[in-house]
Amino acid sequence: MSFTLIHQDSSTKARLGLLKTAHGDIETPTFMPVGTQGAVKALSPKELKEAESQIILGNAYHLYLRPGLDIIKNSGGLHKFISWDKPILTDSGGYQIFSLAGFRKVKDEGVEFQSHLDGSRHFLTPEKVVEIENVLGSDIMMPLDECVHYPCEKKYAKTALDRTTYWARRSKLVHGPCLSGRQAQSTPPQADAPTAQVHRKQLLFGIVQGATYEDLRKQSAEEITGIGFDGYALGGLSVGEPKDLRYNIVSFTVGFLPENCARYLMGLGTPEDILEAVKLGMDMFDCVIPTRYGRNGTAFTSEGKVVIRNGLYAQDLGPLDAQCDCYTCKNFSRSYLRHLFNVEEILGLRLVSFHNIYFYNRLLKSIRQAIRENRLKDFRVSQSYAY
Amino acid sequence: MSFTLIHQDSSTKARLGLLKTAHGDIETPTFMPVGTQGAVKALSPKELKEAESQIILGNAYHLYLRPGLDIIKNSGGLHKFISWDKPILTDSGGYQIFSLAGFRKVKDEGVEFQSHLDGSRHFLTPEKVVEIENVLGSDIMMPLDECVHYPCEKKYAKTALDRTTYWARRSKLVHGPCLSGRQAQSTPPQADAPTAQVHRKQLLFGIVQGATYEDLRKQSAEEITGIGFDGYALGGLSVGEPKDLRYNIVSFTVGFLPENCARYLMGLGTPEDILEAVKLGMDMFDCVIPTRYGRNGTAFTSEGKVVIRNGLYAQDLGPLDAQCDCYTCKNFSRSYLRHLFNVEEILGLRLVSFHNIYFYNRLLKSIRQAIRENRLKDFRVSQSYAY
Repeated sequence: MSFTLIHQDSSTKARLGLLKTAHGDIETPTFMPVGTQGAVKALSPKELKEAESQIILGNAYHLYLRPGLDIIKNSGGLHKFISWDKPILTDSGGYQIFSLAGFRKVKDEGVEFQSHLDGSRHFLTPEKVVEIENVLGSDIMMPLDECVHYPCEKKYAKTALDRTTYWARRSKLVHGPCLSGRQAQSTPPQADAPTAQVHRKQLLFGIVQGATYEDLRKQSAEEITGIGFDGYALGGLSVGEPKDLRYNIVSFTVGFLPENCARYLMGLGTPEDILEAVKLGMDMFDCVIPTRYGRNGTAFTSEGKVVIRNGLYAQDLGPLDAQCDCYTCKNFSRSYLRHLFNVEEILGLRLVSFHNIYFYNRLLKSIRQAIRENRLKDFRVSQSYAY
Repeated sequence: MSFTLIHQDSSTKARLGLLKTAHGDIETPTFMPVGTQGAVKALSPKELKEAESQIILGNAYHLYLRPGLDIIKNSGGLHKFISWDKPILTDSGGYQIFSLAGFRKVKDEGVEFQSHLDGSRHFLTPEKVVEIENVLGSDIMMPLDECVHYPCEKKYAKTALDRTTYWARRSKLVHGPCLSGRQAQSTPPQADAPTAQVHRKQLLFGIVQGATYEDLRKQSAEEITGIGFDGYALGGLSVGEPKDLRYNIVSFTVGFLPENCARYLMGLGTPEDILEAVKLGMDMFDCVIPTRYGRNGTAFTSEGKVVIRNGLYAQDLGPLDAQCDCYTCKNFSRSYLRHLFNVEEILGLRLVSFHNIYFYNRLLKSIRQAIRENRLKDFRVSQSYAY
């Protein structure tokens, strides 16, 4: 199996795990910074490693449009193209397509849409998405799914769920037996290995849909796990639903997912959101919040959010977070960071983005330690630098 | 003296020197990246050190407006505020004021102007500029001068020159005897040293004006050197004049500057421009070109300029510069850099800006080596990585 369950917290449903991929092992629970277009916004691969990121995200749809598959293939895959030798998970981009303001037409065969860039028409099928992800050579591939927004009528939620299952089956078919059923290897693929060999080491996850309806979530989870994937994601959450409803659905659906596979909650969230979901048994998270907030000058700290443009910090010589030992916090004052945002220097958004990713990764590290010590129930985000 | 002339190239008028400042020694000829608002655009202090920058620029006028002196004083000076412990040179900002589209009124007493930010009125005098620079605690202070653009009628050039001399005299008066006349120290000031002690270690340079008129340049050089400063700058060049005329004026004016002081050519230039000016005996250079071009995707390389958006590079797996061993060139292809610019990822402009500063610093290092070996005459910019 690609996933090993190492320890189960005795105070919550949180799990400590190890996910083996072709580009290295990932300790879970883990946060995955979002690098939609082949770069985590404003940060370099070197900084991502300094911040102890174990894995980053890419987006098949975006990379398919720009730079296009030829260029990435020519570079020897996404890892080489972006100079990142650790694991990459690629989202299909289905979420982006279904969020498009412009033209899109969903059929059982696939989804037809216009590029948000030049209006050109494209038709994505589940098979095409896997094919794109094979060229990208990501370590974890997400199949094409249909993600609905909140609120969503039950009838349409059921249609989207059925289509997601149908697409999942086709994705699995084109990918072949899951790695979990084979000998998982964590050695990187050979530089000159043909694509066919490389993608045998790619993991394929299944995505559970069903909006906020328990019976639909149960149906979806049973169908998707029935097909059999290397890991399971909950999609269609973090799309505008109330938090209580979200956690009810997560808590309910987790019960239908196998213990011995990684569980990925797509698109979540704030530090508090992630902690809550870990307690419910989820293992993997991605979100644009730390980098997007970073670019807008909002920092996550052990004392809560700091909106650095606030006049309160004009003369504040302290670091963003007194508990933090990242490059930003070791070298720069709130006063200086505020100045950089006021005068629109790129360095400002770089430094806060870096701190935020560092904060998230440290938070997850502290969460893992708390699970190891069976004390996650009482863990607070303010303890993110506790050890 | 703060400046030591180490070696004179036998093939040109180029000089190898060492300039001692309160925050460390600077080997000359040197290039100084521009950090107008307290940050070199898109780069961190750590990266500036990786690129082997010896000294950076700040701008008194800009920093006086934002964040304002109170904040920088509160932080313990500009070095601490921006977390840069190597030398800083501060320009007065006169050039910026005289380039303002909005209101400004030059009198012998000083210059009245409206802030480009909020329209507030300010009155800068030579004394005020030195006072600002004392608070900033820069290692090298430039006095207020009047910089004219090209072309400039001789009558006005003479008026501006006379005013520059008058202002230089007042700047010197308020600063006191130059450091070159005292014991120059290169130990950093104590953390708790009062401003009065700190600014005793600040160097004050004089600025020679006179537009493109040889007799005016001679008059200005004689007057400014007569007052006596720690170093001498040529101002009013790189303001639109033809290159031939520029180098004639540099070559002519250098003859009136003392051998045993550093010579700074303000606002220049491209790699070729700098090499030319070094050959004429200039020692220090600053220019926004490497960072501005970097942000626009133009890289300086040992084979000339590379405009990275060019379709030519879509599939180019080579680095920006095959001769370069900077982080950008060691890790990323032209193909990837082009993609980053196409999708407007901040990482793209960061990586090219970094490379350009690295390139400039390496060029100057190679130039110093060529002077040491008396072979600058035949040196070409393409040899910037020659050793």
